[in-house]
Amino acid sequence: MITDEKTAVFDLFCYPKSITVIGVSSDDKAFGSRQLSALLKFGYEGRLYPVNPNGGEFFGLKAYSNVRDISDSVDLAIIAVPAHIVSRVLEDCLAKGIKAAEVLSAGFREGGNEGLRLEKELQDIATRGIKIIGPNCFGVYCPNGGVTILPGANFPKESGPVALITQSGQFSEMIVMQARGLGIRFNKVISYGNACDLNEADILEYLAEDTDTKVIQAYIEGVRDGHRFLEVARRVSRVKPIIIWKVGLTPLGSRAASTHTGSLGGSESVWNAFLSQSGVVGVNSIEELIDTTLTCLHLPPHCGSRVSLVSGGGGGTVVGSDACQREGIASPVFTPETQEKLGSILPRVGASVKNPVDIANPLPPSQLLWSVLEIIAASEEIDLIILRRIFLSAKGLSLILGEAESTEKYQQELMDVPLQVKEKFGKPVIVILREEVSDIELLEFEADRRQLRDYYLAHGIPVYPTLERTIKALANLFKYQNTL
Amino acid sequence: MITDEKTAVFDLFCYPKSITVIGVSSDDKAFGSRQLSALLKFGYEGRLYPVNPNGGEFFGLKAYSNVRDISDSVDLAIIAVPAHIVSRVLEDCLAKGIKAAEVLSAGFREGGNEGLRLEKELQDIATRGIKIIGPNCFGVYCPNGGVTILPGANFPKESGPVALITQSGQFSEMIVMQARGLGIRFNKVISYGNACDLNEADILEYLAEDTDTKVIQAYIEGVRDGHRFLEVARRVSRVKPIIIWKVGLTPLGSRAASTHTGSLGGSESVWNAFLSQSGVVGVNSIEELIDTTLTCLHLPPHCGSRVSLVSGGGGGTVVGSDACQREGIASPVFTPETQEKLGSILPRVGASVKNPVDIANPLPPSQLLWSVLEIIAASEEIDLIILRRIFLSAKGLSLILGEAESTEKYQQELMDVPLQVKEKFGKPVIVILREEVSDIELLEFEADRRQLRDYYLAHGIPVYPTLERTIKALANLFKYQNTL
Repeated sequence: MITDEKTAVFDLFCYPKSITVIGVSSDDKAFGSRQLSALLKFGYEGRLYPVNPNGGEFFGLKAYSNVRDISDSVDLAIIAVPAHIVSRVLEDCLAKGIKAAEVLSAGFREGGNEGLRLEKELQDIATRGIKIIGPNCFGVYCPNGGVTILPGANFPKESGPVALITQSGQFSEMIVMQARGLGIRFNKVISYGNACDLNEADILEYLAEDTDTKVIQAYIEGVRDGHRFLEVARRVSRVKPIIIWKVGLTPLGSRAASTHTGSLGGSESVWNAFLSQSGVVGVNSIEELIDTTLTCLHLPPHCGSRVSLVSGGGGGTVVGSDACQREGIASPVFTPETQEKLGSILPRVGASVKNPVDIANPLPPSQLLWSVLEIIAASEEIDLIILRRIFLSAKGLSLILGEAESTEKYQQELMDVPLQVKEKFGKPVIVILREEVSDIELLEFEADRRQLRDYYLAHGIPVYPTLERTIKALANLFKYQNTL
Repeated sequence: MITDEKTAVFDLFCYPKSITVIGVSSDDKAFGSRQLSALLKFGYEGRLYPVNPNGGEFFGLKAYSNVRDISDSVDLAIIAVPAHIVSRVLEDCLAKGIKAAEVLSAGFREGGNEGLRLEKELQDIATRGIKIIGPNCFGVYCPNGGVTILPGANFPKESGPVALITQSGQFSEMIVMQARGLGIRFNKVISYGNACDLNEADILEYLAEDTDTKVIQAYIEGVRDGHRFLEVARRVSRVKPIIIWKVGLTPLGSRAASTHTGSLGGSESVWNAFLSQSGVVGVNSIEELIDTTLTCLHLPPHCGSRVSLVSGGGGGTVVGSDACQREGIASPVFTPETQEKLGSILPRVGASVKNPVDIANPLPPSQLLWSVLEIIAASEEIDLIILRRIFLSAKGLSLILGEAESTEKYQQELMDVPLQVKEKFGKPVIVILREEVSDIELLEFEADRRQLRDYYLAHGIPVYPTLERTIKALANLFKYQNTL
């Protein structure tokens, strides 16, 4: 269990009433200046104190030449000065009574022996009453606390159920921005870099007790404290899903991790053992991280795992079946009764009623789609339906093939079928909407696809761009549910 | 070697001077009507003869009640009548002297015993002087012959270096449309369904000798004639790359393949043995199929395989290194001399000069990017450069982060750096352009991305959306080159 004291310190990072940014200068591209600018643009409402050795004024704020000169109390120091000065600055922060510091500066452990020595100085100072996130990081984004990371001026102001911890600053930005279009919002993003003091296990413990956080994501290059991390991860993953993108698992990757955050990457086999012992969900790309998060957010915690794939064409039933089998997902053949019911409404030739169901028409009449899904959802044989390559907006198909005709009414009816099925039968429905065309002249198709995606997401129907990614995200969820 | 006679028959399918479409009716959604309509919209310039038992007129063309009533000679019959009538229609075609027939109709082997019996009838007829593609297929697209498949009215009119053979009709359409945005054009797409007569080996033999075809793609559910296919594939892949997406390799997938095209899926181990014996490149999704094709089209046939990844941030160097190692791609550490040269122009902290190179700035000055790439390309240590997360259009970054400033001149200079490096050093450069944001309000970012992508593609620089997909596509190419 995390101590109240530790929680209080993390709260200073996430909900600071006052911040000093140390290392602001007249160079707009300096990290300190960019961090201060990001906080201002993001709309931080607490008190802000820039520090520059020569004083002056930045962004309309008076700068202090030393943090000790600030008369007000300060909750958080964000430090962006050259590596060899950081210790001295931290000593000033200690003297000022500051208890939380983010060190954005690079040039520590990742840079070799001299950097390692400098990082050890930071660790020593941390034992004397100030907790450190970093060095070599982008800091903390917490919209409810009004704070954001270095490149996070444009991050959403709304909070959400996801927390992200990451050793890579750039990925913190990329993940938040890519997830945003899918309606995924974060309550905390902690870019923690080299983890000289507060590490992955500390942060995980804090997020475990954080009631705002329902799903935890992580990008990790090297685990600092493997034994404790396993213990904490095992405990936390019983309460909420932890999805970890672990990198540096090959010799080449580990070499790069050492240069990037001074991390020891580790081996695939050790990591796989960790996953099976901890209940943590392992992923291998930004896409898989976000897809899996979407599944965790939209599907009920104990939904069953027997899947029916309903496809607008036959090839997808083969691809989907291979994917299910490889991922260990059950896609049972329907009973003769259910097959017979489906057979009575689907074309005698061309279609398939066994599961996967091939309705042999990417643009079915809405009544037909409804009837097919009703038969499937009403059966006790499956728990979840995936719709593939059915043009739920007829506009999409006509943009591609130039042959479909449709009316507004038809579109709305077809589009709503998945919602109605979900509502009536209480079974999850998942929709696959591909980027079918990427010609620059056909941006209209992408606009239509995003509109439809947002409509479904707003109604609790997860949307993925490909069959393979859908099955992978589902498999990750089912694996997690099986550990509970 | 393919016989002249066989080549002549395939030419009838691809470059017919006259076509009869049998099974046109007043129902616009009937396959025959849609096929005829597609040919007309596509602009087929040969002679067209619809056949309907009651005669009449369709799309302004006189319909014949029987194919034998057509007085003109007919090169190709496209048949879309119910399965149990197909034999009779084929007999009429034989009597008329037609030597090539596409049977679009479903309801054969994939439907069970009665369908299997009907398909055997087709096979018997095929031995008597008419070659059949299908049944249960979408036919042939060949822009230089003016013909297109059922959903192919909007397919490109321009021909290109790629040929696709596929058992799934729907994938023929999806692959052509998705590849189109990347500038990939096809000279032939052959949707061959159940392959009752002409099968994958026959088609491959034809494409081997087809000088228009530089790269062959295939989607295969079940191989009809494994022994011959291996022999042909091994021979052809010495001359041009064959990229095969083989599905139905799991019990569930094989079950679905049997329902879809009456195919026997086979096993992963047999397929892997086939790949290693044949030199065929195996892929596992539409994306991988298209990515690999793009690599084959844009990279020189014997480019070396030592890669340097140049990244705008550090996390990507770790991810890229893991991906290279897993795919067996060499990403050698630079010599001290090269590291020193890079170190003299990159920031002392934050960047990495070992390879991968982290320039620690997603929006570098164009002169810096040029100097970095020049040092790398001039060294004898690597053969190929991948650029990741560098905003080669500054507009993209400013749309995301709202903090970058840029001028038109700056943009053009930065954008042209990869082209200049490729030109000066004759080494391939690959650019990764992610879909960084997918908010419906930010379609402008996607427009910008596509514009930049098209610019690079037009200059022979392949573009991929993610690091993982880039490395996979490269690995596939290198594996192929190693078999030569």
